[in-house]
Amino acid sequence: MHIISEQRDDDGVLERRFTLGEIPGILWTPGSASPSAPVPLILLGLPPLGLDTMYPRLVARAQQAAADGFAAATIELPGSGARPRWAAADEARAELRRVMAAGEPVGDELVDALVLPLVDKAVPEWQAALDAVLSLPEIGGPVGYSGGVISIGIRLALVEPRIVAAGLFAGSFVPRVMFEEARRVTIPLHVLLQWDDEGNDRQAALDLFDAFGSAEKSLLANMGGHTGVPQSAGDAAAGFFARHLR
Amino acid sequence: MHIISEQRDDDGVLERRFTLGEIPGILWTPGSASPSAPVPLILLGLPPLGLDTMYPRLVARAQQAAADGFAAATIELPGSGARPRWAAADEARAELRRVMAAGEPVGDELVDALVLPLVDKAVPEWQAALDAVLSLPEIGGPVGYSGGVISIGIRLALVEPRIVAAGLFAGSFVPRVMFEEARRVTIPLHVLLQWDDEGNDRQAALDLFDAFGSAEKSLLANMGGHTGVPQSAGDAAAGFFARHLR
Repeated sequence: MHIISEQRDDDGVLERRFTLGEIPGILWTPGSASPSAPVPLILLGLPPLGLDTMYPRLVARAQQAAADGFAAATIELPGSGARPRWAAADEARAELRRVMAAGEPVGDELVDALVLPLVDKAVPEWQAALDAVLSLPEIGGPVGYSGGVISIGIRLALVEPRIVAAGLFAGSFVPRVMFEEARRVTIPLHVLLQWDDEGNDRQAALDLFDAFGSAEKSLLANMGGHTGVPQSAGDAAAGFFARHLR
Repeated sequence: MHIISEQRDDDGVLERRFTLGEIPGILWTPGSASPSAPVPLILLGLPPLGLDTMYPRLVARAQQAAADGFAAATIELPGSGARPRWAAADEARAELRRVMAAGEPVGDELVDALVLPLVDKAVPEWQAALDAVLSLPEIGGPVGYSGGVISIGIRLALVEPRIVAAGLFAGSFVPRVMFEEARRVTIPLHVLLQWDDEGNDRQAALDLFDAFGSAEKSLLANMGGHTGVPQSAGDAAAGFFARHLR
């Protein structure tokens, strides 16, 4: 983990941009964090739109986390932002745009091609980022995972024992095989659903929520489309992490 | 409105038992309420189990309301508790018990018989209670409605303009005709659903949520049965009323 810049905002939150090998990332820590008072961590998932595009929303989520006493970290997804293009992912996304523009149904094969390689490649990277961030003396644990591509969150919740709670956004395609992984997830979950999400099948999202094996899971559905998540939903997610990471 | 007893708890919350004609009720006001600083009101809906049975849970909800600066009030439903028995309601409930014990489906006619007369009789009573409570100088407005038989909440949300927000519990049978009323509801709604509610059809609850005409509505589903509502769901409902009544 190589720190490439540091800045502190008016609330004392320290933002450090870093690289982990070729992967860019950002770490935010609250002013209260120190080696003698290490803080829990929330991994901020993001869609494959690039860190720069997502930066304003990531900062807002990191500031909320810091206000609750948590560090927050994120890394660029494979094939996104400043990272090398990834031909297979680009082709799958181009096919998705073509299919949706034509009003055709998005088939299982296309969903698999869009999501599964991304999950397989991204999850070990997030685990490596977790190793690096948790090696800092001012970051302790436990760890939560929040948002982003829901299949990445499912896989991480399943395979990464340091993650004790996950807040997921039912806002992207989910391959059928991920339902099987969802059944084996046992950590507390808070799932956000936009009731009229234009790019997401509502019934599939409800089926996925039903499939999760966790004894403690909640679903919060709000009106509106993919980007219309209300402030109150952010507050509810913050409350979920406050209950599970403190 | 005839006050029959008064007591103040350790937090300064004043509990007044009253009668409105033959109908018993309870009003709680926070210590901060006064004629010069009137407070908003939450009507606490309840199931037809009787005020005495529900009292501990009602007190907890009233204390939460008071902590947020709101008064709270409730009245006994027709045919419940100390009120005169109501033969038609008793017969419908006996038939429900028989049908459920026999493992038979609960038909539309039985649901109508269980719920519609109750809604028709209770709603004007709650409106009369609202008249009485709002006539007190220490109670101002706006008014929220919370919980209880969801069809009563739907009808009140539709016909009572003083109610500006409703927190509903999708935990009881809903006659088909109430879906039509739900489509005409426009106030902000927060709907609670227990995912494995033994006495409630999950798909019907989701369909009802979808039917509500409100531009602002949220659904919060948690694991567990009818009585397993977690503390966090109470906190979320309190947050909803805090946003809409302050």
